[in-house]
Parts: sequence; structure tokens; C-alpha cells
Amino acid sequence: MGNPVFSKFVKAGGKNMTNTSVTTGSIDQYIAESKSAYEKTLKAFVDIPSVSMEYMQDNIDKTFASDILASLDNIKVDNPILQMAKLASDSLKAAGFATKIYPTKLFPVVTGELIQNPDYPTVLIYNHLDVQPADATEWKHKPFDMVIKDDKYYGRGATDDKGPALAVLFAAKYVKEHKIPINIKILWELEEEIGSPSFEAFLKKNKDSFKTNSIVVSDTIWVSRNNPAVAYGLRGLQGASIKLTTGAKDIHSGTTGGLARNPIGEICELMYKCYDPKTGHVKIPHFYDDVKEPSNEEIDHFVKSGFTIDDFKLAHEVNSVRTTDQKEAILRLWAKPTFEIHGIKGGYIGPGIKTIVPHSAEAKISMRLVPNQDPHKIFNELVAFVRSECPDAVVESEGTLMPYLGDVNSPYMQAASHAIKKSFNKEAVFTREGGSIGAAISMNKILDAPIVFLGLSLPEHGYHAINENFDWQQASRGIKLFVNYFDLLSTCK
Amino acid sequence: MGNPVFSKFVKAGGKNMTNTSVTTGSIDQYIAESKSAYEKTLKAFVDIPSVSMEYMQDNIDKTFASDILASLDNIKVDNPILQMAKLASDSLKAAGFATKIYPTKLFPVVTGELIQNPDYPTVLIYNHLDVQPADATEWKHKPFDMVIKDDKYYGRGATDDKGPALAVLFAAKYVKEHKIPINIKILWELEEEIGSPSFEAFLKKNKDSFKTNSIVVSDTIWVSRNNPAVAYGLRGLQGASIKLTTGAKDIHSGTTGGLARNPIGEICELMYKCYDPKTGHVKIPHFYDDVKEPSNEEIDHFVKSGFTIDDFKLAHEVNSVRTTDQKEAILRLWAKPTFEIHGIKGGYIGPGIKTIVPHSAEAKISMRLVPNQDPHKIFNELVAFVRSECPDAVVESEGTLMPYLGDVNSPYMQAASHAIKKSFNKEAVFTREGGSIGAAISMNKILDAPIVFLGLSLPEHGYHAINENFDWQQASRGIKLFVNYFDLLSTCK
Repeated sequence: MGNPVFSKFVKAGGKNMTNTSVTTGSIDQYIAESKSAYEKTLKAFVDIPSVSMEYMQDNIDKTFASDILASLDNIKVDNPILQMAKLASDSLKAAGFATKIYPTKLFPVVTGELIQNPDYPTVLIYNHLDVQPADATEWKHKPFDMVIKDDKYYGRGATDDKGPALAVLFAAKYVKEHKIPINIKILWELEEEIGSPSFEAFLKKNKDSFKTNSIVVSDTIWVSRNNPAVAYGLRGLQGASIKLTTGAKDIHSGTTGGLARNPIGEICELMYKCYDPKTGHVKIPHFYDDVKEPSNEEIDHFVKSGFTIDDFKLAHEVNSVRTTDQKEAILRLWAKPTFEIHGIKGGYIGPGIKTIVPHSAEAKISMRLVPNQDPHKIFNELVAFVRSECPDAVVESEGTLMPYLGDVNSPYMQAASHAIKKSFNKEAVFTREGGSIGAAISMNKILDAPIVFLGLSLPEHGYHAINENFDWQQASRGIKLFVNYFDLLSTCK
Repeated sequence: MGNPVFSKFVKAGGKNMTNTSVTTGSIDQYIAESKSAYEKTLKAFVDIPSVSMEYMQDNIDKTFASDILASLDNIKVDNPILQMAKLASDSLKAAGFATKIYPTKLFPVVTGELIQNPDYPTVLIYNHLDVQPADATEWKHKPFDMVIKDDKYYGRGATDDKGPALAVLFAAKYVKEHKIPINIKILWELEEEIGSPSFEAFLKKNKDSFKTNSIVVSDTIWVSRNNPAVAYGLRGLQGASIKLTTGAKDIHSGTTGGLARNPIGEICELMYKCYDPKTGHVKIPHFYDDVKEPSNEEIDHFVKSGFTIDDFKLAHEVNSVRTTDQKEAILRLWAKPTFEIHGIKGGYIGPGIKTIVPHSAEAKISMRLVPNQDPHKIFNELVAFVRSECPDAVVESEGTLMPYLGDVNSPYMQAASHAIKKSFNKEAVFTREGGSIGAAISMNKILDAPIVFLGLSLPEHGYHAINENFDWQQASRGIKLFVNYFDLLSTCK
């Protein structure tokens, strides 16, 4: 890692890392005193239905972005995304941050700066405040009217990602109150659930405002409640649609069946030639050429993460999985690439059967990629393979995300590990994420700073699921963890 | 063929077959004089939108069937299927037939009897008067307002099957006028396009009314205008849906991809293991065990049918087919069984991609079967094979039709061949149909009589397609052919 900012930290970090100014008693007292304020703020955040997907369609007012700042001066903002931006900005302001709301091509980005001294090290924390849609009829409680029950917070966005965002905010307030010598920049996105379409352009345009020594992305999951996790890698993605058209219209399978080609059959063959769904093994030539195998040290961490196949099946409500080997299971989720069919379309899908030979079929697929696979190279391999197997099928790219891999031995990972030890008297487990966070890749690339993924969510909190929730245990742990992490970073200048 | 009625004919047929009482001059004059009446009647028939599919849904009046006879006494019948039944009955009556309208569980069956003498041989002719739906916006002319242009008749149902039905009717009128010693029973169905759901039960209940020496089904296609065809076989059908469910809901492909099973992928694998879509070869064990290969004589007829791959591609608007070998192409359409995927369903099929692992997938398939394949046995082989390849997939039967094979050397086929020779001075080609006609199988089984398929349609008439049409050349040829066929049959008693 040739990043000069990072190198500066590496030099200092080794020396001072455990020499911190924060006492556990002081934090515990702060946390206990903050509970009611945290819950009040979280409820205000969750109660705004900031569902980005509902507003991304074509019918959106084209003047939306440019009108944002004007709209926010008006008390009566009736778009939940803008309401969310305003409340977020107000909350940062109240915590002592200098705030700004940046318009983008779609939804605004809300930022807060706590610059105590330009000479202090700076950390940039990323969360998002937009949420997944929620069908109220399926929920036990109303999704946008947060209910507190036994220190659990039920509501859409509680764990993804409003609860963790506010844990960061409350930790930052402590930093300010106790004058911990670090600068904190907070960046709250409102487009994460729709793939961050404006984020990279926004960041490129404003990169000078977000200079930082390191980045924390707090939108990840501990594998189990008892194993505090720090993630250091993400899988990338190459999406594609593969379409085959063999005729102008559906034709009668009695009159033509046997001689006429069947595009669904040929797409099925192609899918099976691309990968073996029983094992997940991808058969596209050169697919695995650039895969970087995880080290034994990394694998040790994966195994200690608390992952079990049984918990996985329970959390995701699946009947069975592709392997019964725990270690192999984790590797397939975090360190191995995949080929996945997201949808398939063709012919008649109503009740019963309709005896046609369909005229076209389409598969929607993606490949999750791991370091050092290059999505563009992989896409070209896919296109070449499809051409060789089924020359008249048409392949189109449907989105590209680079994989990301940090260094488990970097000082930032070590700092996170120390903060976890100090906060919970537990060893951190170093994990990777199977998913892709587009904004993280953009920040890493444009701001040229290393990322640590310090999430607070648990599988049982139900990311994207009905009855999503968060809890005080993870929120309070989060505040403590972030205070300790900031304190450790502050000593490294 | 142990049918005693049939045996009687075989004995007589050899002797008298070409000794007929009808002169070509007399028929030609009759046909010329009938043109205007034929066209007027056909227009009246085509102009009634007797689309059975539109009325088969659940919202149909449950008292429909039992009210039919009462309704028909009323001049103002506003259901097009009933209007069609009434006009059909009236037309048969005008031609001198004793008519009856049979209610069934769904749509009525219209019949006419011309019993000149109980000792004469009897032939039963089947046509259907219900039609496929038609989207007027796609047609050059209105589909239900028949247009005559250059002796062509444009309108839905013109060729399938109203035009051929009326050619039969006009031939029967000639029979009556010229006292050709044969009894004719006409049977017009109104449910053919929806798979004849009530037909078998209707026929079983009324089998005594339809006693006959032989059956003609006139709902088939000549392969080309210059090659008059007599079909003697049908493929059967075994439909199935194959469904695989691996979880309770769609899950996130980042968090779960690699470990979670993908039901679409597994269904695709299963489809490819069932058959090779590039060649059509079916890989299910024992699938071909009972296939009866066509004789060299049959194959010779197939090759002489006028079939060309280029015409096939043009007629069905397909870019390419599975073989360039003409003979092989015909065999695959008429004499070889198939595996066909009619539709496939699973996951997200909207625009772009959605990175989910789907929780279920379903394929809708059928196998066209040839003599002597038994659909029930084939279904059991399919179930066993699916169970061995993917134990948790669920297979359900979706309809069963037996294949049918007449004897190319039977006297009825020979009579049809002679009638063609006499009518057009051309050699008949003996063909099979790739499709299945449920009503034909029911008649063969319940009435225990052999079937000859004497259709009049051409590929360019566009069965089920937009701008469907029929023409006077085929209609007049049809009248002549049926008169000569009836005349030949009459000599065999």
C-alpha cells in the first residue's frame, strides 16, 4: 500500500497504539446517560420512511437535485428523503458538527465536519440513511413508527443503517466533549439501497472536502453476537443479461416441435455450461485465473468468526445448502467468486401449460468476484464463452463493481482489533463481506485512503427483512467501540 | 385392426373402389354454381367471433350448459359461441340434415345427420367452429369481418376450421342432391381451441348416436399447395410442470451467494440433463424404448410431401432450425418424440438485474410422443429421472394425449388416395401430424372406428396467426375431394 497518508500512520501506530486517554468508566457513564437521547433520535430517524427506491423512478421531478438546498430552508419539506436529509443535518449540527447538504444528480449527501485542529489525524465515517421498502401488512409493528421492546428497536432502517449511524454520532459527541485529538468527517448517503448511482460523481467533484487518513464504513454484519467482527474485504460484481431470440413469435409445438430451436432449452444448456449449480463451480474458461487465495491466517479468522451453517440456514430461511463443511461454506461466501442466476424469463408462465415453442429467452446473472479478479476481464471471458457455445445469444453488461481487499495486518485493522479488545475484552475476528458496497470502492479509489469495515448489525436483526430491528446492546457496544477506535487513531500522528 | 365394421369395408373396398357414380363434369358444375353461396356462408360463419378461450374462464355463467337449448329458441342470443352453434345448426338444417345441439359441461356440440338408408355405410366428419383469439390492431383487415380479395378469404377461423367445415357441408349437399348412397354424420365442436375439455365425456354419453364405419377429421394441413395430403397419424403429449423450492424467500446474493442453492440453476441443469436442445435428443432413460420407427414406405411419402426447410422457416418466422437435412427434419416433426420447454419462471425478470438468490423456479414442459410410446409410462420415467437428479424437485402431470397411428395401407387411406387422384390427377402424399388432436383420439377410442385426416389448409393460410385466410382454390378442391371420397366409400357396403 503506497498511500503516503497511510504510511505516516503506520510509522506512528506501532508505538502509541495502546496509550490512550479514555477510561472505560468514563465511557460507560457517558453511554448510560446517552441511552434515552439515542433512542429518541433513532426513533425520529426510523419514523421517516426514507425509502430511496420509491423515488428513483422516471416520474421524479427533474429539478429535484437543484432544488434541494432551497427546499430545506422551508420547514414544510414533504419528501421523506429530504426530510431525512434535514433531520440528519440538524442532528449533526446539534452534536457540534459543521454540516453541509450536497445536491447530487438524484438524492443529497449529508456531511458533518468536526475539525478540532488541522494537525490532528482525520477519519471519515460512512453510513447511509436511506432504507429498503417495507410492506406494513407483513410486519408485527408499523415499519415506520419505531417500537422499543426489551431494549430492542423495531422499525425499517433500525439496523440498516440508521442505528449504526447514530452510534457513530454519539461516539463523535464524546470525542468533542472529551477533546480527543482527532478530526471526524461524517458522510451520510441517501442512495445506498439503489446502488449509489450519484455517489462516485459527487465524490470526484468534492474530493478535496473529504481528505482523510482513513475511512470507516459502518454498514456490515458481525457473524454472531459474541464475535465482534472487523471486515477488510468485499466481493466485486459483474452483472449481465444473456438473451437468445430464435424467431419472431411463439409457435405451435405440435406443428414445429422437434425441428424448431427452443431458446429456453438453449439458455438452460448455456447456464449449465457456465456453472455447476450443485457445487457453484464456475466452468467459464479462465474464470479462476486471477483469484487470490486467502492466507491460512485469514482462514483461521474466518473459522473463528462464529459462523455456523445451521445459523445461516435459519437466518436466511433456506432448506439446504451446497456443502456441510463449515470452513468450505465460509470460503464460498467470502473468498470465492460465484456465478448466480437472478432471474430467467421465457415462454408461457401462467397456470397449466401452453404448448408453444417460445421465440426468446433471457437469463439475468451476476458473478460475485474476489481479489484479484478484474470484472472487465471476466465479462470478456463470459462473452467469448457464450459466443463459442451459442453464437446468436446476446450478452449485455449489467453493472460492474470492483472487489476490495484491505490488509488484515494494517495498523487500522490492528487499531480496530485493539479497540474491540479494550471495549469488550474479546478478540476481534477479521472477516470479509460477501456483498459489494459501491460507495466503499469509490471512496477507497478517489480518496486514496484505506477502509476498515466496522459494522454493528447482527444476522438476527434482519437486513432488508420484515420486522427489522436493532438493539441497545449493539448500539451501546458501538458507541464504546467507536470512542475507543477514535481514541486509538488520535494517538497516531 | 380388429374392428368388424372396418373389416367389412376392407372386403368390399378392394373390388369396387374405383367404380364410382360421380362424373367430374357434374361436380365441377356444382362447384362453380356453389361459389357465391359458399362465400356468403363462410362470411356469416367467420363474422361470428366464436373465440372459445374468451369464455372458458371462471366468470362463465355456471348455468350456461343447461340453458343452451332454451337460449337457442330465443332469436337474441348474445354469446358468440351460442350464436355460432345456432347458425351452424341452421346451416345444417338448410342442407337437409337432421340437427341437434348437445349441451356439454362447457360449450355445445352441433351435429347433423343425413341418414338416407340405414343399410348404407356411414361416415362421421369432424370439424370445429371455435377459433383462436385475434388482436384486431395487428390485422390488415378486421379479423371478424371477412374480406374477399382475389379469391382469398381473410378472417379469423377462415382456414381453422370454418372454411374446411363448409367444404364438407357443400360436398354433403351434393351427396344428398345426387342421392349418393352413403350416410353422413357431421360433428362440429366448439371447444377445440381450448383442448376439448368436455368432448370425451359428451361422446361417451352419446356414443350410440355416433355409430359409424369410419371417421374423417378435417383440421389438418397440406405441407404444400401442390401436394394433396392425407394424414394418418398424430403425436401424443405428456405435459408436466417441474418446480423446485429451496427457501422461503428471495435472499441477497452478496450475503448468501456461493453457499445458498440456486433453484433456477438447478432447474436449468435438470432441463439440460433431460434433453440436448441443440439436437432435440432426449436423455431421459428408456424414453425411446417403445418408439416405433416409420417404415421406408412411410418415409418415402414424407419426403414426397413437398416439405422444405426453407418454407418451414418462412411459414413459422424462425431464423434457424436444428438440422439442414430435409428427411431428418420431417422425421423430427412427424415421427420422432420431443422434449419441449414451454416456459420457465423464477427470480427477478424486470429491467436490469436484481442481485437475489431466488427461492423457487419452475419449468413448464411437454413431451410429444409417437407410437408406441405410452404417455403414462413416459411420465413415470420422467418422475424417476428428476428424482434421481434433483430429489426435492416436484413434478406434476399437465395433460396426457395418446399418440395415434393409422395404417397407410388401410382401405380408407386408399380411398382417400383414389379420391385425390380422381379430383386433382395427382398422387396423394401420406403424412403425419406433429400435433395432437384430443377429440380424434376420443372418437377413435369410443366409436371404435378408423380415422382419416383429410384437411384442406396450407401453411401460408396462417393457422393461429394474424391475417389468417383461406382461399377458393382449396375450398373448391375440398368440395370435389369430399364428394369423390364419399362416393368411393358409398360403393363399399
